[in-house]
Amino acid sequence: MAMAARQIVLAARPKGKPQLTDFRLEETAIPTPAAEQVLLEVQYLSLDPYMRGRMDDRKSYAKPLQVGDVMVGETVAKVTASKHPRYAEGDLVLAHTGWRTHALSEGAGLSKVDPALAPVSTRLGVLGMPGFTAYGGMRVIGKPKPGETVVVAAASGPVGSLVGQLAKIAGARAVGIAGGAEKCAFVKNGLGFDAAINHRGADFPAQLAAACPNGIDVYFENVGGAIWQAVLPLLNKFARVPVSGLIAQYNGPPPGDGTDRLPATMREILSRSLTVRGFINYDFAAEHYADFLREVGAGIADGSIRYREDIVEGLEKAPEAFIGMLDGRNFGKVIVRVGI
Amino acid sequence: MAMAARQIVLAARPKGKPQLTDFRLEETAIPTPAAEQVLLEVQYLSLDPYMRGRMDDRKSYAKPLQVGDVMVGETVAKVTASKHPRYAEGDLVLAHTGWRTHALSEGAGLSKVDPALAPVSTRLGVLGMPGFTAYGGMRVIGKPKPGETVVVAAASGPVGSLVGQLAKIAGARAVGIAGGAEKCAFVKNGLGFDAAINHRGADFPAQLAAACPNGIDVYFENVGGAIWQAVLPLLNKFARVPVSGLIAQYNGPPPGDGTDRLPATMREILSRSLTVRGFINYDFAAEHYADFLREVGAGIADGSIRYREDIVEGLEKAPEAFIGMLDGRNFGKVIVRVGI
Repeated sequence: MAMAARQIVLAARPKGKPQLTDFRLEETAIPTPAAEQVLLEVQYLSLDPYMRGRMDDRKSYAKPLQVGDVMVGETVAKVTASKHPRYAEGDLVLAHTGWRTHALSEGAGLSKVDPALAPVSTRLGVLGMPGFTAYGGMRVIGKPKPGETVVVAAASGPVGSLVGQLAKIAGARAVGIAGGAEKCAFVKNGLGFDAAINHRGADFPAQLAAACPNGIDVYFENVGGAIWQAVLPLLNKFARVPVSGLIAQYNGPPPGDGTDRLPATMREILSRSLTVRGFINYDFAAEHYADFLREVGAGIADGSIRYREDIVEGLEKAPEAFIGMLDGRNFGKVIVRVGI
Repeated sequence: MAMAARQIVLAARPKGKPQLTDFRLEETAIPTPAAEQVLLEVQYLSLDPYMRGRMDDRKSYAKPLQVGDVMVGETVAKVTASKHPRYAEGDLVLAHTGWRTHALSEGAGLSKVDPALAPVSTRLGVLGMPGFTAYGGMRVIGKPKPGETVVVAAASGPVGSLVGQLAKIAGARAVGIAGGAEKCAFVKNGLGFDAAINHRGADFPAQLAAACPNGIDVYFENVGGAIWQAVLPLLNKFARVPVSGLIAQYNGPPPGDGTDRLPATMREILSRSLTVRGFINYDFAAEHYADFLREVGAGIADGSIRYREDIVEGLEKAPEAFIGMLDGRNFGKVIVRVGI
């Protein structure tokens, strides 16, 4: 073999923020497909906040990784050898290979990708799981009406950017929260939100309130923590809160000041008839995924739906990019171009 | 006048638990109705946990009382003099007179009560606002399915007792939480719940878990605090949590131990796709109140829906009874027989 396969495994469970030493790059032989198998060569690896949860030994909607396991993740891969009747050499597929350059598959969980529909990397972002998280959460839970106000954090990211654009399509006001002036400029000017607020500003709660003069009807929650505290007083009667992520607490609960914030949140849920509903994108896939592909695919094709990717070169850069994403240092959907 | 009218006003805003000195009994003249007015003589006054919220100077779904205002409350009253075309002497009505023996009304907010339908006191309990709170929350949010498990606290009270009976009618398992052996016996044997757990037991969380071997699909939240902490780990994927009250925190947030419990609750909302939705009974009145009166009225008439009332004699006993109710010392729906 001129070039070995590579993979990144969980070397140690992180304590709080993941460190580079929690990951380990391993070389292995490139495997050979047996009957009914294909060999996949990964082109793009998606990095997503949910992966942080899998690194902990805690029951959630999916089983935790064990130390030594290859990090999980969705990828776009090319079939480079096939003994499977449904796949031919050269086919592009969406796969759950994890953080690796090569993988064998018997076809379970693979789906073919049509490169004519949209750039294939978008199937990991705006036209993939993050995009469908935005679409499903807004369609089933958020349900914005014309004239309402929709707020989303991480607004330059793959979920938030589509949440705001879907709000605009529905005739609602879209207010994005992002970290720093550059991201805010992109959210407002590049994505067409009505307002963008920098959560790093000292007067962030006041700025957010000023940007929402009629209160908030939908808050798409993917962050938690201090941003939730700023949003809570602004929520209108009957506001809806789809909860798709809580990146601010994935590295452990934020440092407490001794205040139990649950009673205040429950009080507002009661007194303003709020709906707070968690979901995982595939909760809604059976009913809404086909509509998503058609509607958002068309929006990408005609340019009416915009998105931004933050491409990282080389599998070995994945741990560093992942750690940076958890700190909000990415700018757009984080995708690793794996190559070989 | 042989007998003056009496009323109870908010004498001081409570700090934490209300004290008797936060109320004041006042005598006034019995008023005389002008044109288009009726004079009401109160027969029954309902005492309900929401009244605690009105005593604080805090924005909620209704305006706070001012010090010196008559305490708010729903009543069954008799029209003893009428200059209003729609009401005749002797009519019984539901009214929002507050804690008083007599009141004038121009008819707004009055509705006639048919004493043939059910004992009129039930229109303040199982067939009134508390009953409709149970009905609306279960019908719109809880939506129990056959074989699911429904849990409710304050299960011998007017909301909880109907929640469990509606769960049974829907084919679900009903588990009630109540304070003390006597209430638990009534919940299980008198109301027909499948199980009743005493929340004052030291091993309450373990007992609750044992009573819910398949987890919890609907938790009807009217208490909050420590009971929520015991329920949270038992909630199943897609569980629904109608939030109609938080009596454990009405006297102020429970004493903290420095733990912020919000992150853990949000994490479970996310990882188990929970729906937590607050409501006030009248959110659902337009759509569901007629069905409620028909269905629950029929159940009371044929004895298939059971209820318990805790009748207190005399308006002057209302403050003491109200304070006791907030501590869970009532046994059934608290109603003051006002008389004169």
